[in-house]
Amino acid sequence: MNILVSNDDGIDAPGIYALVLEMKKIGTVTVVAPDKQQSAVGHAITMNYPLRVKEFKKDGKFFGYAVQGTPADCVKLAVRAILKHEPDLVVSGINHGSNTAISIIYSGTVSAATEGTILGIPSIAVSLTTYAPAEFRYAARVARKLALLIGKRGLPPSTLLNVNVPPLKAKDIKGVLITRQGKAVWNDTFDHRRDPNNREYYWLTGGLEAIDQDLEFDEAAVRSKYISVTPIHYDLTDYKMFETMKKWNIEKIK
Amino acid sequence: MNILVSNDDGIDAPGIYALVLEMKKIGTVTVVAPDKQQSAVGHAITMNYPLRVKEFKKDGKFFGYAVQGTPADCVKLAVRAILKHEPDLVVSGINHGSNTAISIIYSGTVSAATEGTILGIPSIAVSLTTYAPAEFRYAARVARKLALLIGKRGLPPSTLLNVNVPPLKAKDIKGVLITRQGKAVWNDTFDHRRDPNNREYYWLTGGLEAIDQDLEFDEAAVRSKYISVTPIHYDLTDYKMFETMKKWNIEKIK
Repeated sequence: MNILVSNDDGIDAPGIYALVLEMKKIGTVTVVAPDKQQSAVGHAITMNYPLRVKEFKKDGKFFGYAVQGTPADCVKLAVRAILKHEPDLVVSGINHGSNTAISIIYSGTVSAATEGTILGIPSIAVSLTTYAPAEFRYAARVARKLALLIGKRGLPPSTLLNVNVPPLKAKDIKGVLITRQGKAVWNDTFDHRRDPNNREYYWLTGGLEAIDQDLEFDEAAVRSKYISVTPIHYDLTDYKMFETMKKWNIEKIK
Repeated sequence: MNILVSNDDGIDAPGIYALVLEMKKIGTVTVVAPDKQQSAVGHAITMNYPLRVKEFKKDGKFFGYAVQGTPADCVKLAVRAILKHEPDLVVSGINHGSNTAISIIYSGTVSAATEGTILGIPSIAVSLTTYAPAEFRYAARVARKLALLIGKRGLPPSTLLNVNVPPLKAKDIKGVLITRQGKAVWNDTFDHRRDPNNREYYWLTGGLEAIDQDLEFDEAAVRSKYISVTPIHYDLTDYKMFETMKKWNIEKIK
C-alpha cells in the first residue's frame, strides 16, 4: 500500500512523526506537508504565488517534502507532481487539537484529506482532541487500524473519514462511535489591544459552545471518551431547501 | 435593513463597489472586506496573528473597513467587534469569476457568506462567471432583488445561497434556476519552472472538467445562460455513509 501523509501543523510536528512511524508498518509512506504551521487555513489553495518544495530531514535522514503552501496544496502537489504513482490512501494528521463540529470547516487537517478525496483517493483525517502537550502514539495506532479497515471495506468516491481521538490511554477509551458533525459553534470574541507603537489590533479568541449532548455527534462522543469517526463529503447542497425553493417565485430576481 | 458587505477580491475591487451601490438602495450598508486579494483562501481564519483594520476611502469619501485578514475574518470581526448592531443580511461579492461545483469549497467569497450564516445572519454569495474584464451592474441588481426576496421569505438557520450570474446583458439571460452544487472537479496541473536564480518552483494551473450537463447543476446552468441559485449548508456529514458504516466492525480500531 502506497500511503501519502500530510498535515496542517507542519512537517516538523510530533503528530505527523508518530503517524508516519505507524503507517510504515503497513505500507510505503511519502510525506508531503507544509513547511510551517497552517492551522485554520480551511481549504485554501495557492494560485497567485509559486510553490517551493524542500527535502526535509529528521535525525539526519530524509523524512519528507516540505512545501511552502497549504495542506490542500501539499496533497495536490504530491499527487500531481511529486509522486510517481498515485497513492492508495491519504492520511492527514495527527492534528494537535480536535476537529469536530463547526471546526471541520476551518480545519487544514480535514482539508488535506478532502483534497485527497477530490483527487479520487480514499482519505482520512485524524486529530487528537487536546491542545495540551500530548502523546500521539495511540491515535497513530488507531489511524493504522482504520487504514487497514478501509483497505478491506473501501470508501465511496466522494466520502472521507474524519477521526477524532481523545487524549487517553487505550484502556480508558470507551469504544468507537460512528458520528455526525456536531452543531456546536464558536463563541468568537476579539481582544481589542494596542501594540507598543499604540496602533490598534484585534486578536480572535473563543471556544466551542452549545455542545451537543447526544453521542451521535462528534464532539459529544469524544468528550464521553469515545473515538469519533465521521463520514463527511463535500457536496454542500442543502437538498431540503433545494426542494423548498422551487416554490419560491425566484424568476423575479432576473 | 442593515446590510454587511464583504468579498474576497479585496475592498478596492470593482465587484464590491457595484454591489454596495445597489445595496444602498434598500438599506444601510457597512463594508468590511480584505485589504487585498484573498481568492481561493477557502474558509481560512486568522488565529496566530493579530488583525488590523483601516478605514478605506474611495473618491475621497469613507467607503468601508479594510481588514488585514481573510473574508471569514472580516465577517467575524464586523459582527463581533466593528458593527454596533447585528446586520440583517450579509452579502459577499461580487466575485470576479464563477464559484460553482468544486470551486465552492475553495472560495473565499462563499466563505464570507458561510461565516455570516454561522453567526446566525441570512447570507448570500454572488459571483459573476467570467475572469475577463467585466461589468458588474446587472449582477448587483440581481443581488439586490434577491436580498428583498430573502427579506420576505427568510432562510433556514444554517442555509446560505450561492448565486452565480453569467456575464450577459439582462435581455440575454434565459432565466433563474434553483441548482445543486455540480460534480465537476479541477484538472490540476503544475507548471514546473526555474526562477532566475535557478531554483525550482511549481505553479498551479487548470480548469473545471467533467462538467455536468443537467441544468439542475450550477455550472451547467450558468453555461446555458441561466442565473444559478444554490442553497448550501455546512453540515458535511455523509448521512448515507453514516448508515452504511454502522454495519462496519468499527470497534476493532480501538
